Amino acid sequence: MASKKIQIIRSISQMQKLSRALAGKGKRIGIVPTMGFLHEGHLSLIGRAKKSCDVIVVTIFVNPAQFAPNEDFARYPRDEKGDISKIKSAGGDIVFVPAAKEIYPESFQTYITVEKLSELLEGKIRPGHFRGVATIVAKLFNIVRPDEAVFGMKDFQQAAVLGQMTRDLGYPVKFVIAPTVREKDGLAMSSRNKYLQTPQARIEALCLYQALQQAKAMVKAEILDTAEILEDMTDRIHTVCPSAKIDYIAFNDIKTLDAVTTVKTGTVCSLAVRLHGVRLIDNILLK
Amino acid sequence: MASKKIQIIRSISQMQKLSRALAGKGKRIGIVPTMGFLHEGHLSLIGRAKKSCDVIVVTIFVNPAQFAPNEDFARYPRDEKGDISKIKSAGGDIVFVPAAKEIYPESFQTYITVEKLSELLEGKIRPGHFRGVATIVAKLFNIVRPDEAVFGMKDFQQAAVLGQMTRDLGYPVKFVIAPTVREKDGLAMSSRNKYLQTPQARIEALCLYQALQQAKAMVKAEILDTAEILEDMTDRIHTVCPSAKIDYIAFNDIKTLDAVTTVKTGTVCSLAVRLHGVRLIDNILLK
Repeated sequence: MASKKIQIIRSISQMQKLSRALAGKGKRIGIVPTMGFLHEGHLSLIGRAKKSCDVIVVTIFVNPAQFAPNEDFARYPRDEKGDISKIKSAGGDIVFVPAAKEIYPESFQTYITVEKLSELLEGKIRPGHFRGVATIVAKLFNIVRPDEAVFGMKDFQQAAVLGQMTRDLGYPVKFVIAPTVREKDGLAMSSRNKYLQTPQARIEALCLYQALQQAKAMVKAEILDTAEILEDMTDRIHTVCPSAKIDYIAFNDIKTLDAVTTVKTGTVCSLAVRLHGVRLIDNILLK
Repeated sequence: MASKKIQIIRSISQMQKLSRALAGKGKRIGIVPTMGFLHEGHLSLIGRAKKSCDVIVVTIFVNPAQFAPNEDFARYPRDEKGDISKIKSAGGDIVFVPAAKEIYPESFQTYITVEKLSELLEGKIRPGHFRGVATIVAKLFNIVRPDEAVFGMKDFQQAAVLGQMTRDLGYPVKFVIAPTVREKDGLAMSSRNKYLQTPQARIEALCLYQALQQAKAMVKAEILDTAEILEDMTDRIHTVCPSAKIDYIAFNDIKTLDAVTTVKTGTVCSLAVRLHGVRLIDNILLK
């Protein structure tokens, strides 16, 4: 749709040079860090960045440091050509797509840890995951020098960890969290939805969204006890998908991630479920 | 001597604003991070930065994160007023001197670890020390946005750790290591020399320099076996200061810090010695 030129950058030094030139011209730079295989959710982040920035840099990097050895790094879906075309259509200006060796040369040994927030929920189940996420995002901040960074609410713990890192390390970056984009039936958009390869799996994957809707309805009916909500959510998940394995259903403050026993303003309900060989996460702000 | 105005900045947001304005004017910013109580060594770093930068930011921050509970954080010497006057004389332009709470608010939880290089020498004896150093310097880089950073060779492992961090995290900062400045008799300048409160202690503190000179002379005489050099250095230290406790005498590559058994180009000999209640470090490039 858009016909202007898009720049594809693969080297750190070239990206740094370009960022410096843009800053010198007074351009406001927005960054949208991704692992590629883009969907409507990512494109909405680009749209959000365009509202307040002059130049949008989308990064594509399947970050080995945030996958454990037993996870899906090798089979994580990739489609660089398709991604670039989507970024162009969505109005992105620059695609920074470095090779793994460019980011992690052999001597690489520096890591960033956000201690407390990384230890819960996803971090408990995926040790080292947020260390990898914080490290790559800090490095991208240093290379791209954005004025603003946009992340999706779907990975709300990631957003909390990265927001904390941004504040703690004094990055002059405005941190924006954009709402989760869903399929028509409610399934949260995710590159990993590609793994849902049978119609049955696709239907049963709705159990996450339906459980969250159930929680939301209970809170609306003034049921605020999270133990009670959790019980009903668990039932709902197993009704929709009898084979589902629940990693966790949790209730936390959106910013501090402190556990919540009675729902209040800022309480997020999040969950991770394994079904048909796929691990999915989702969340909802309850109040 | 110099009569131009010097700016004292205490808040992160004010420093960020100032850096942005300077960068917008195309000024090349040099940073000299210090813990204050400045001596000729620090002032030589300012002089080095002035050679290639338009604006010199000297930071003064006694960083609690790099002291262990049993170390000298509380009694570390401080003299803000004297420091500012020295910085002015040396030609510094901006002094960034934040309070501890400004850098480490209560919710602070993000740390940077340079894994391999931090585990040896000083890092072995002072666990967590380089984590604190890497974290504060990264934060200062994010706040000040320097084009160039100058560190002293006296803390050569610190320089190696921070150089690695700068490269690993993609900071667009030129990393400069300036030579150690010494008293006339050879004692390396250090804020901790203040602790040498008797003439006896001051004289015996020369054992570090004399041992390093001994090593240098042996290398000049083609004695390259580090075990042999170490033995003679140990003797020399105990001759000059019989009560000295040697933490380590080590031979490492200047960049990778790999241990060296036969002296070659790039081999640094470093040592840490406790004497008269004071812990001193020093080093020399042997070849």
